[in-house]
Amino acid sequence: MSAQRTTSLRGRPVVALCGGVGGAKLALGLQRLIGADLTVIVNTGDDFEHLGLHVSPDIDTVVYTLGGLSDLERGWGRAGESWNFIEALGALGGETWFRLGDRDLAMHVDRTRALRSGISLTEFTAATARRLGIAADILPMSDDRVETMVITAEGALPFQRYFVGLQCAPVVKRLEFSNAERAAASSQVLAALRNPDLAAIIICPSNPYLSVDPILALSDIRKALGVVTAPIVAVSPLIGGQAVKGPTTKIMAELGVAADSASIARHYPFIDGLIIDEADRTEAGKIDLPTLITSTFMRSLADRDRLAADCLDFAGSLAAVALRRTAT
Amino acid sequence: MSAQRTTSLRGRPVVALCGGVGGAKLALGLQRLIGADLTVIVNTGDDFEHLGLHVSPDIDTVVYTLGGLSDLERGWGRAGESWNFIEALGALGGETWFRLGDRDLAMHVDRTRALRSGISLTEFTAATARRLGIAADILPMSDDRVETMVITAEGALPFQRYFVGLQCAPVVKRLEFSNAERAAASSQVLAALRNPDLAAIIICPSNPYLSVDPILALSDIRKALGVVTAPIVAVSPLIGGQAVKGPTTKIMAELGVAADSASIARHYPFIDGLIIDEADRTEAGKIDLPTLITSTFMRSLADRDRLAADCLDFAGSLAAVALRRTAT
Repeated sequence: MSAQRTTSLRGRPVVALCGGVGGAKLALGLQRLIGADLTVIVNTGDDFEHLGLHVSPDIDTVVYTLGGLSDLERGWGRAGESWNFIEALGALGGETWFRLGDRDLAMHVDRTRALRSGISLTEFTAATARRLGIAADILPMSDDRVETMVITAEGALPFQRYFVGLQCAPVVKRLEFSNAERAAASSQVLAALRNPDLAAIIICPSNPYLSVDPILALSDIRKALGVVTAPIVAVSPLIGGQAVKGPTTKIMAELGVAADSASIARHYPFIDGLIIDEADRTEAGKIDLPTLITSTFMRSLADRDRLAADCLDFAGSLAAVALRRTAT
Repeated sequence: MSAQRTTSLRGRPVVALCGGVGGAKLALGLQRLIGADLTVIVNTGDDFEHLGLHVSPDIDTVVYTLGGLSDLERGWGRAGESWNFIEALGALGGETWFRLGDRDLAMHVDRTRALRSGISLTEFTAATARRLGIAADILPMSDDRVETMVITAEGALPFQRYFVGLQCAPVVKRLEFSNAERAAASSQVLAALRNPDLAAIIICPSNPYLSVDPILALSDIRKALGVVTAPIVAVSPLIGGQAVKGPTTKIMAELGVAADSASIARHYPFIDGLIIDEADRTEAGKIDLPTLITSTFMRSLADRDRLAADCLDFAGSLAAVALRRTAT
């Protein structure tokens, strides 16, 4: 299997919905394959104000990953990062539970300055991506503030307090996305989803509850996905019933959902096909959807390229299915 | 000459008026001599908003110097500093003309957060100094914003644009201190100056025009100095007609003032005595004030200690002179 397979979609736009680390790996593969034809719509539900700075963790992960600046070993933040700021802040008695690297800090300071001066998050992200030579369009899901709240047995927790501060330890009862009902998807996001030439929408293997659902919580986006004629394909974040990283299966268990591919398929009722890992091959029969079984584990750059090509090929094969969906 | 000479003042409070680097050296000597009996009133006319952060260059120089964190070779900022933030900011297209070190940045971020939450600059500075184990009280001259404007042949320039951005190249016509007429000295500053037990006020060898005049521009402080019964002693920033560092003599020339000790004496008409360097010994006769001739060059820590002791001894010797001044 190789990139040549995808020539049928070449030159047509593709949208990926993406959270942080896991999703960004696939977005990188897609960018390597189709470059400027890729638009990545990124979760901003994790965004928060910290130390007076506007931090956008998922956008930054995508920007650093597509810009070739990410730390592949640590899995978040920038490669070659230093930590002198946060160490000095600790010595001054400041908050250090959310560790900001010295280089990473430049992004937060520059973004905060931009937002205060009236530049939108969408505009700032686009300018930064251009500056870093990123081919794909990276779009925050919204320029309005949407805040992921984790409702736990210990009360409602802002996302970063749950995820970083408490290391996902509290038991999740449900997720809420504050202001999602009032927030608007940006015009750029809606234009990407409504582009009549759109070849595919790929839901990256991000955490469905924490990273993709905030995007889907925007009614504009839900509506656009409901009428899109391009095939919509999701990549399951599970491999052998486990997530590569993060609390996906812990949350599924806490929500009373089986940690299997069928649950992922049910979680995205609007998709035309699901990509699952070879380790979950036996689950394919339980999924009432076209399913592609492949290796979804992305360790190497070649893995990212291969899965990206699989996504586009699979989506291409579902074009007729998608048309039938929208005709009914 | 040694610290023993100053026993007559030991245990009584001393106030120093101070700008940045040169002044902070003497403040360190004073702190080493009298510790918690020292209050340093610091210029905030150089403060500015940069990258959305509140930067207080002179306060930070004094805090770092008295806290043992300053870079003695570079003359500003913190020792062992790294510059990854500013490098990354440049790569993002951000402003880099004012270089903020990674560790230094912690101060600006923490201060900006504090000020936004309603904590005063005075309170923040005190808390930081405590945290860093600094014995002296470090007081911003005011919690109100006063902005040093350099009126040049090329127009009015905010201080940092003139000082850092243009490297003091434009010809100075005069200095203005925006809002100084409305700004109030803090209650802590006034309490220090009005303390009836005050032993001495030392004007550090900072730039008279750029660093000390903003402090004197506050009418509360001018009034307090006019009635204080403690001796007021200034240390000339000139050595052999030259400043150790910075644009003092360039500005004096541009303002049509001779770069000599007599000009410094005239610049501070309210002082009881002037300390000049041995290199300017021949100028003593032209100064219509008690004058102490000593070495004012501070290269080593011992130099700082010695000059601090000289200041206190000289002030002690002028107690009767100061009393006569306030009686007339």
